[in-house]
Amino acid sequence: MNKIKALREKMMQLEIDGMIIENPVNIFYLTGIQAEGTLIINDKENLFITDGRYIEDLNNSLTIDDEIIALSVHTLEKEEYFKMFENCIKVGFEENYITYAEYTNIVRKYRIKEATETDGLIEKMREIKNQNEIVYIEKACNITDNCFLHIIDFIKPGISEKDIAIEIQKFIIENGGDGLAFDTIVASGENSSKPHVIPTNRIIQKGDAIILDFGAKYNGYCADMTRTVFVGEISDETKALYDFVLKVQTRAFNKYKNNADCNEIATSVQNELYVHNFDLIHALGHGVGLEIHEKPILSTKSNYTLREDMVVTNEPGIYIPRKIWN
Amino acid sequence: MNKIKALREKMMQLEIDGMIIENPVNIFYLTGIQAEGTLIINDKENLFITDGRYIEDLNNSLTIDDEIIALSVHTLEKEEYFKMFENCIKVGFEENYITYAEYTNIVRKYRIKEATETDGLIEKMREIKNQNEIVYIEKACNITDNCFLHIIDFIKPGISEKDIAIEIQKFIIENGGDGLAFDTIVASGENSSKPHVIPTNRIIQKGDAIILDFGAKYNGYCADMTRTVFVGEISDETKALYDFVLKVQTRAFNKYKNNADCNEIATSVQNELYVHNFDLIHALGHGVGLEIHEKPILSTKSNYTLREDMVVTNEPGIYIPRKIWN
Repeated sequence: MNKIKALREKMMQLEIDGMIIENPVNIFYLTGIQAEGTLIINDKENLFITDGRYIEDLNNSLTIDDEIIALSVHTLEKEEYFKMFENCIKVGFEENYITYAEYTNIVRKYRIKEATETDGLIEKMREIKNQNEIVYIEKACNITDNCFLHIIDFIKPGISEKDIAIEIQKFIIENGGDGLAFDTIVASGENSSKPHVIPTNRIIQKGDAIILDFGAKYNGYCADMTRTVFVGEISDETKALYDFVLKVQTRAFNKYKNNADCNEIATSVQNELYVHNFDLIHALGHGVGLEIHEKPILSTKSNYTLREDMVVTNEPGIYIPRKIWN
Repeated sequence: MNKIKALREKMMQLEIDGMIIENPVNIFYLTGIQAEGTLIINDKENLFITDGRYIEDLNNSLTIDDEIIALSVHTLEKEEYFKMFENCIKVGFEENYITYAEYTNIVRKYRIKEATETDGLIEKMREIKNQNEIVYIEKACNITDNCFLHIIDFIKPGISEKDIAIEIQKFIIENGGDGLAFDTIVASGENSSKPHVIPTNRIIQKGDAIILDFGAKYNGYCADMTRTVFVGEISDETKALYDFVLKVQTRAFNKYKNNADCNEIATSVQNELYVHNFDLIHALGHGVGLEIHEKPILSTKSNYTLREDMVVTNEPGIYIPRKIWN
């Protein structure tokens, strides 16, 4: 089904008469439009209000089947905004996206009678991927997998964390990715216990552990891969730890099933880590799609249920400050 | 002066007793901290609340001179949040950054007596750059200039818009940039009148006009360059148009002076375009800094005054659908 139609059905169930959608990711998801603007769903039609940079392109690409009317912000009079929701009482907005200032502005601008939070309505639709979306994510994952194979060949003593990050970016854009799904993390040696965001000039040395966290984007859809690799020989203690985390991950993976409770899975991982005096310092996993972090969250504080056609990560980790990797 | 001290002075003038800062760009600007978290300014101290991924690194890098206490979100009890603003009446928040949902959440979470909008207080501070910031922006501009010189050599019939975009990205990351300041625009031939966001597979042909819009980031600071280039010979009509826009830009540039009125400058450009039946379909310019689009805006609808040490763009343009570049 057309995604806007599916949204309209959900709005009807919630007795919401209209909706203002500003989040460009949600707009792309619903319409395929990649332009800055506002999507208006009212009792009669679907409007997309945008500016001079996009309007010509939209008028050429939108067809009657899209059921979207593109309007230029420059030609709209004040009164035309009032008319958009004149037959609507409850108008939904994206309380998790629009700012407090935008909220006060839209209520005034559209003369909204009853602005209502929608509790991530569109984000919830996005949790369940359709077959096209899954194909795009698989393609993003393939590019990311190939990049990993390339990068473990590329890593050697003498190059820096930054060199590795640049090579990852180059590989992804040269091999069909739109670009990076998120800023690459390359954390080596003493940096590997503090997986911070910016690759440094630190030079890779023999015996280093390196945490790689990266992913490609394909047709707007993200991949997310985390791997710990070692340069040369490692101690038995380190190997045992690596194998332990891998085992924990594998056991968790077997629990990723339709109707499984996310909290239960994360708690079982946390308990396995507790037994060895470790802790789960971040979520076990999260949904992936048009954004790198989507619902559901798999954590000991979350309350989601896994459903068929969700796409989620499984990334337990142990971080030991200054203990093992030097 | 320390930027947090400067902020505290401005808060005092506005009779704001405390402030909650969530925008990571503002947090980086004020503290140099590049980590997800919340900066709390209260009557006694500056707190940075973050999570397990960042806390070790922060505790190592923050010194007594930073006057910032890092707290882990995992160890904070509910009551500790209540205490943070117990001596504050008016607590400012970033109404242009936090969502409506976050607004309702912080009021509850910190038991705020009087949450108050701050009208872009920190963003206003960021309009005026200090000497370090100017050096970083100049460096970002240098990398971007060199990239342009490289790319005009690189462009030739037979390659695609995407090829050009990839080469720009490669050049910037290989020549000292942190990465791109924003998604590169490469719009050629019939695409050049609709400067949309995504470079396509369209193959560059002799006689094409190509709009390039790109920039490097350096130490977090952005550069923003727009250029129209031509492949091979162009018609006299096209050349006349190019020269016209260049002249308009140069005349505008001569008006970029301390105390100049942004609206007046943009209006004078618009009037020059009107004379030849063109229009200014986007803003004439905008501030550049840690973000690619900052205040002030130079447009016929804006109301800003240029001040010394602001960094702003000057980018008039004419877009003629399907008329000239084919």
